[in-house]
Amino acid sequence: MLATVLHGPRDVRCEEVPEPKILKATDAVIRLSASCICGSDLWPYRGLNAVATPMAMGHEYCGIVEEVGSAVTSVKPGQFVVGSFCLSDNTCPHCRFGFQSSCAQREFMTGAQAPYARVPLADGTLVGTPKLPPDDLIPSLLAVSDVLGTGWYAASAARVEEGSTVVVVGDGAVGLMGVLAAKQLGAGRILALSRHKTRQDLALFFGATDIIAERGEAGVARVKELTDGVGADAVLECVGTKESMAQALRCARPGSMVGYVGVPHGVELDGQQLFFSQVGMLGGPAPVRRFLPYLMDLVLERRIEPGRVFDLTLPLADVAEGYRAMDERRAIKTMLRV
Amino acid sequence: MLATVLHGPRDVRCEEVPEPKILKATDAVIRLSASCICGSDLWPYRGLNAVATPMAMGHEYCGIVEEVGSAVTSVKPGQFVVGSFCLSDNTCPHCRFGFQSSCAQREFMTGAQAPYARVPLADGTLVGTPKLPPDDLIPSLLAVSDVLGTGWYAASAARVEEGSTVVVVGDGAVGLMGVLAAKQLGAGRILALSRHKTRQDLALFFGATDIIAERGEAGVARVKELTDGVGADAVLECVGTKESMAQALRCARPGSMVGYVGVPHGVELDGQQLFFSQVGMLGGPAPVRRFLPYLMDLVLERRIEPGRVFDLTLPLADVAEGYRAMDERRAIKTMLRV
Repeated sequence: MLATVLHGPRDVRCEEVPEPKILKATDAVIRLSASCICGSDLWPYRGLNAVATPMAMGHEYCGIVEEVGSAVTSVKPGQFVVGSFCLSDNTCPHCRFGFQSSCAQREFMTGAQAPYARVPLADGTLVGTPKLPPDDLIPSLLAVSDVLGTGWYAASAARVEEGSTVVVVGDGAVGLMGVLAAKQLGAGRILALSRHKTRQDLALFFGATDIIAERGEAGVARVKELTDGVGADAVLECVGTKESMAQALRCARPGSMVGYVGVPHGVELDGQQLFFSQVGMLGGPAPVRRFLPYLMDLVLERRIEPGRVFDLTLPLADVAEGYRAMDERRAIKTMLRV
Repeated sequence: MLATVLHGPRDVRCEEVPEPKILKATDAVIRLSASCICGSDLWPYRGLNAVATPMAMGHEYCGIVEEVGSAVTSVKPGQFVVGSFCLSDNTCPHCRFGFQSSCAQREFMTGAQAPYARVPLADGTLVGTPKLPPDDLIPSLLAVSDVLGTGWYAASAARVEEGSTVVVVGDGAVGLMGVLAAKQLGAGRILALSRHKTRQDLALFFGATDIIAERGEAGVARVKELTDGVGADAVLECVGTKESMAQALRCARPGSMVGYVGVPHGVELDGQQLFFSQVGMLGGPAPVRRFLPYLMDLVLERRIEPGRVFDLTLPLADVAEGYRAMDERRAIKTMLRV
């Protein structure tokens, strides 16, 4: 089959690879309904993470179960499923505490920018729907797999509550999903930091009440101005740079939490500064599995439309253009027809 | 009056100073029932914080109101009061969120190792008792002012719940109060890290179920062994060094919180490491005011005995020996008769 392989910085190709097979009794193989490119795929694409050997790309997925290993009991061939980018057994203590992204057996999904993919730990990772969903819901169900689940975790880790004033740092796809999550969790006010018209418009669509175009000092000052000098009750950090983390921490009021889901690159935190700011932090790879059933239901009931985050759709053969468009910020998030 | 003044590293003296007076309409002057020496007093005593000019020492206090400013309405002369080491108005937004230690008008108490002390922001800072408490409760009421309130905040920030497995890093007075707090909050298991017999015994008295004498790698391994490889549900960091913070973070399970109350000295946190550990953090100077009424009631009802943390009592004139005893770890915490 033709699938996506990263050979080195900015060298991503759609090329012939062997079709996936069941390797363990706990595996499933799925035929993807659609796939997409993640902001985190850009780290190795940009050469910021080393690429030693060619990498099978793609970790966001939904589709029809093609085949299951002999130990798989919770999903069956022909069923539509969504899975998390973190593979988990969903039975170990960390999973039972709702942190499936730290599962004792955790693996990270790969090879999902392809027509077929192998999903290890199928029983603990995949969630099926009662019947096949209509085609127009596929983008939103795909979004649940990572980008929405990650934005949701940011809001959950930041302890967004009914009436909270929330700041979202980052207008990428995850940040926009963070806005959606904050809205669903009852936030009273959602301040989205964005300087780009199309992203500002999407943020407003997903529930932002205020757009802040300023960054750095000026961005902090604007948040303070909009919160009577207090700062936000909850901050979602959805980028992962030193600047974005500093921005997030400085927008948060004492006693609030920063939920951070952008993989930190070059972020060092000074313990004493963090102490006196009295701002809390919780982050990490999102335990999407915890949220999957609930978020899939919201999509199936058409109460949310996270699929709107895809503003470019390409055939898998054009995956290289999909990466380029996101790298150059011409696209927010690229969906791939497989 | 004779009071405690720090002149430089290891140079603390009981010497003649002017008696405190009402300077602002919101002040109170109290006659102290007792005072004590805090672990944090040792930072400047040891020369780790610079001492530019002679410092009036002491920020833990309880006693009888002697005089109040014209604007003070909540306490009156003759009433017994306990206050927080953080002075707060208890009306600003941060106070209303329960983070009085980040009050917009915050000041830190000073000069309480003395017979009399001035308490600014008296209405927002002091909590009175309905009648004069019996003498034998004075040590426990004094403890509420900082050391218990701080241990309690550590447990609260770490989100100790009914049944939690809790690790307490630090066997100083604050760590021991953290044990007491975890016990009161319903922890199922409390693992106290301590290598000193007298402190181990006190930890057990306050509710520790397990004592861990190992540190570093071995300490982490022991925590993992006692938690079936999972780690703790909540960790209280009550020291503030690089080593103790590393210990705390490594004992915590993914998704848990480290409540840290030791002022960090030389602590740098790597963002990516913290991210993948999926351990949350919340710390800072304790908002003792939030907990004061509840904790004072627990003491007055004789349900807790935090005053047991004082293992040395000296007259104020011998304050220098009190500092020496704590510096050399001969005493856990020194109470001063004023």
